[in-house]
Amino acid sequence: MKLDNDIALALRLADAAGEAIRPHFRSGVGVERKGDASPVTVADRAAEEAIRRILKAEVPRDGVIGEEFGSEEGSSNRTWVLDPIDGTVSFIAGRPIFGTLIALLVDGWPVLGVIDQPILGERWVGASGFATTFNGKEVRTRACRELSDAMLATTGPHYFDDHQGEHFMALAAKTDHKRMVMGGDCYNYGLLASGHLDVVCEAGLKLHDWAALVPIVEGAGGTMCDWNGEPLHAQSDGHILALGDPARLEDVVDALDCHH
Amino acid sequence: MKLDNDIALALRLADAAGEAIRPHFRSGVGVERKGDASPVTVADRAAEEAIRRILKAEVPRDGVIGEEFGSEEGSSNRTWVLDPIDGTVSFIAGRPIFGTLIALLVDGWPVLGVIDQPILGERWVGASGFATTFNGKEVRTRACRELSDAMLATTGPHYFDDHQGEHFMALAAKTDHKRMVMGGDCYNYGLLASGHLDVVCEAGLKLHDWAALVPIVEGAGGTMCDWNGEPLHAQSDGHILALGDPARLEDVVDALDCHH
Repeated sequence: MKLDNDIALALRLADAAGEAIRPHFRSGVGVERKGDASPVTVADRAAEEAIRRILKAEVPRDGVIGEEFGSEEGSSNRTWVLDPIDGTVSFIAGRPIFGTLIALLVDGWPVLGVIDQPILGERWVGASGFATTFNGKEVRTRACRELSDAMLATTGPHYFDDHQGEHFMALAAKTDHKRMVMGGDCYNYGLLASGHLDVVCEAGLKLHDWAALVPIVEGAGGTMCDWNGEPLHAQSDGHILALGDPARLEDVVDALDCHH
Repeated sequence: MKLDNDIALALRLADAAGEAIRPHFRSGVGVERKGDASPVTVADRAAEEAIRRILKAEVPRDGVIGEEFGSEEGSSNRTWVLDPIDGTVSFIAGRPIFGTLIALLVDGWPVLGVIDQPILGERWVGASGFATTFNGKEVRTRACRELSDAMLATTGPHYFDDHQGEHFMALAAKTDHKRMVMGGDCYNYGLLASGHLDVVCEAGLKLHDWAALVPIVEGAGGTMCDWNGEPLHAQSDGHILALGDPARLEDVVDALDCHH
């Protein structure tokens, strides 16, 4: 698969999204915080519109699935999957660790992914057959010899239901619990790809939340799967694991203990 | 109290700490992650040494309390309180939302505080008799009319014991739970001062973790106290509340329900 042109296109999509998002970050303080016209909603929509405009002009046969404006069927085997602002709560709180997620699926499987942080100018890019890059430089996940050494991240335990929370806590107890990281959304997967974190464990993710992460994590030497260690697919139920060191997969799945 | 000279000194201390810290951020990936010579420990010590060197030269009579190198008694009524890297887990994970905390206590009470984020070049400064600034521009906390609208932040529920966790969850349930923010350490208090968050609730903080935050939050119109709503003092037990809108204090304390 020749992805060079698609990578170049994805970078332009991320540029356009960033331009649409930046004016709204930390804007409207104290004015309004909810509802249709909140800064985050305006930014989210403006970014997705900007991306869709470019896709329509350049790859009109490709399908599009976006967090804000739903699905548009294409006439090729290719679909762009967009989450213009992953980490809306971070965005609203003024934290520059949200991200724009752009994925290209071919025959339903993500072969290209971008995590773009438009405030910091940070960008991870992963694609089948390419090494993952952070701001243009190749990155690798790190080795993790023992699960008890692993730094674990999740956006927040309040996103788990009671049942999921129990399994997560069982995993957390076997990792380096004191250095567990909370918050962060897609940014955690980028940091994992760069070798700063070992495991990310989340539930309730939609396709647009995780599709872009797969080529980034896997192109850096890591692996992604569900809580049973099974490969992800378009209908996965949103229980997501990312590991920097695939050798720890069995340990993580055992610790989560979802098999019965 | 004339704090202008002390503010200028505090800014130079923050500059020196930032210079000492920056080379170690995201360094040593995959090399070593624990122990005395880890990048975070090296950065922590280098920053505190840099600050202490300046204090010794410029205000030799002032006392110093630092997270890394302990207490040095002074012969004035003034004490500098230092936490060179607040948010060591964020630092280790490669997230640029940790901070250097510098406080000046006069007669035991913080009258000047700095939160410095040396990677992003972001700095909050608060001092008695001055409006709090973020990168030199005045900031204000925002109004919060109902506790159910409040955005609540905490670094992580895993820092609470079971008892603290119950009280925290009781508070969380009465805030805008879906927009609760996890992770962030001192950065959350800066964002609260800037009007992006409404309540921060933490436990187990030491004097060096919270002293710098008080002048910043209060100089922006907010308030800080313990979980019973009582004023903080040098021997406070580390249960810390920050509110952007002091009018919600009774609601927050009632929700936490620590009075019996």
